[in-house]
Amino acid sequence: MQIWVTEKQTPDLSLSIRITAILFHKASNYQDILVVDTAEFGKVLLLDNRIQAAEIDEFIYHEMISHVALYSHPAPSKILVIGGGDGGTVREVVKHSLVELIELVEIDRDVVEVARSHLTHLSSGLSDQRCKLIIAEGTEYIKNIKDSYDIVIVDSTDPIGPATNLFTEDFYSAAYTSLREDGFFVSQTESPILHKDLICRVHKSLSSIFPIVKIYTAPIPTYPSGLWSFTIGSKKYDPARPIRKGEIKTKYYSEGIHRASFVLPRFLDEAINDAKPL
Amino acid sequence: MQIWVTEKQTPDLSLSIRITAILFHKASNYQDILVVDTAEFGKVLLLDNRIQAAEIDEFIYHEMISHVALYSHPAPSKILVIGGGDGGTVREVVKHSLVELIELVEIDRDVVEVARSHLTHLSSGLSDQRCKLIIAEGTEYIKNIKDSYDIVIVDSTDPIGPATNLFTEDFYSAAYTSLREDGFFVSQTESPILHKDLICRVHKSLSSIFPIVKIYTAPIPTYPSGLWSFTIGSKKYDPARPIRKGEIKTKYYSEGIHRASFVLPRFLDEAINDAKPL
Repeated sequence: MQIWVTEKQTPDLSLSIRITAILFHKASNYQDILVVDTAEFGKVLLLDNRIQAAEIDEFIYHEMISHVALYSHPAPSKILVIGGGDGGTVREVVKHSLVELIELVEIDRDVVEVARSHLTHLSSGLSDQRCKLIIAEGTEYIKNIKDSYDIVIVDSTDPIGPATNLFTEDFYSAAYTSLREDGFFVSQTESPILHKDLICRVHKSLSSIFPIVKIYTAPIPTYPSGLWSFTIGSKKYDPARPIRKGEIKTKYYSEGIHRASFVLPRFLDEAINDAKPL
Repeated sequence: MQIWVTEKQTPDLSLSIRITAILFHKASNYQDILVVDTAEFGKVLLLDNRIQAAEIDEFIYHEMISHVALYSHPAPSKILVIGGGDGGTVREVVKHSLVELIELVEIDRDVVEVARSHLTHLSSGLSDQRCKLIIAEGTEYIKNIKDSYDIVIVDSTDPIGPATNLFTEDFYSAAYTSLREDGFFVSQTESPILHKDLICRVHKSLSSIFPIVKIYTAPIPTYPSGLWSFTIGSKKYDPARPIRKGEIKTKYYSEGIHRASFVLPRFLDEAINDAKPL
């Protein structure tokens, strides 16, 4: 007998993986949470039947959502992570010795608990003394905070369901206000192949708020299309230029990858420029 | 009613696409040939039930297998393409005005014919006067040719079935001999995520023959894992450095992408270095 899990990545496109064990399954207050072990991808966390983190490639996603901003900032000390309850982003952020405090704001306590129980490779950083877990909705949490963070990282699910508010201009404004004068804002912004319009919209919104806005990409095989984007807003520094030397162990990220990740496919570069206001 | 085609990318991993029309299906002397139209990926060519070229992303593959070597060579005039019977690579090569002759050596005449009939966006270059079609097995064709080509491009299927011979050291030696003194050899070399051992093996084999060997990558969403590699052997010039200015229209390739594509994920870089002989 074979058991497979199928993610309908779009109504017309599916990815299926053979399961070797179902480790956890529960409907939380916010979403359906499933953890499986698989022959091809190792342990996989699915939320509402969409792959969030697979052992085979989660390091690419978590390294790239974290280290690009962290290495572009001269002294990243206080970091806010919104979403990311599985702990993968925190695991990368705590590798930086300059970091003194990470606030992890996750809406769904069950995601944190399942990661602690079943995905210890992801959740290891959550026990770091510098990490403060806050169970709250991200846009509510951030809205009265001023001049506080060096970096805000949005490690969200897709812009449907619980994460919808994290893709709005109101939220981007609040994030800007919550940052210190030389802060960075980073958000995962979906696939350049399947969600180009979303990327253009986020780029335009952020550009009306931050003086510097750039997009970078990374391959994430288990996400739809396998190519993923991140959009970064900066108040002062160029996010495409790492300004501190590597101190940490990584499996994907390097100084060269950092710079190369900002070189966009021509079709995306042209779409962004076409979408810019005159 | 919905009809889907499923590619078993590995025994434990499948990609499925909804079909809107079956345009062609035939078992040729070499392989099963299927052309479908799909809602998500446009027209798709499958050989032995593996996606070879999908309208949504074939431009990335064909631009990257062609333009990297072509822009790194000061005067590419005579080009050999092995495989690539669908015409996509030739379509890109003929964009370069310096090119005077392209020999396209395809083992399976039916692939060329189906592309001409059903995949005209791919096969348009085949009617270029500089393109000479030769129906033959690539390793047989090349083995008595000396000092002839500026660039040899291997646009093959996976290293199983008809393409097996195109991944051997004997073939690489013959390709070296067929090249002029400043020639390039390029081959598609599968996924850095799923076929890292193959990439290391090809790198090692080519390194025993060519003085310069480098690997570059590109995202190909419809291929297994969505990340693909190409390995290039060079007799003289650095393939990571484009030395002519862009003259042609592309959708993925740019001078920046050319350079960035050679910056490898750390895990691949380390695997290649570990596999190197002392």
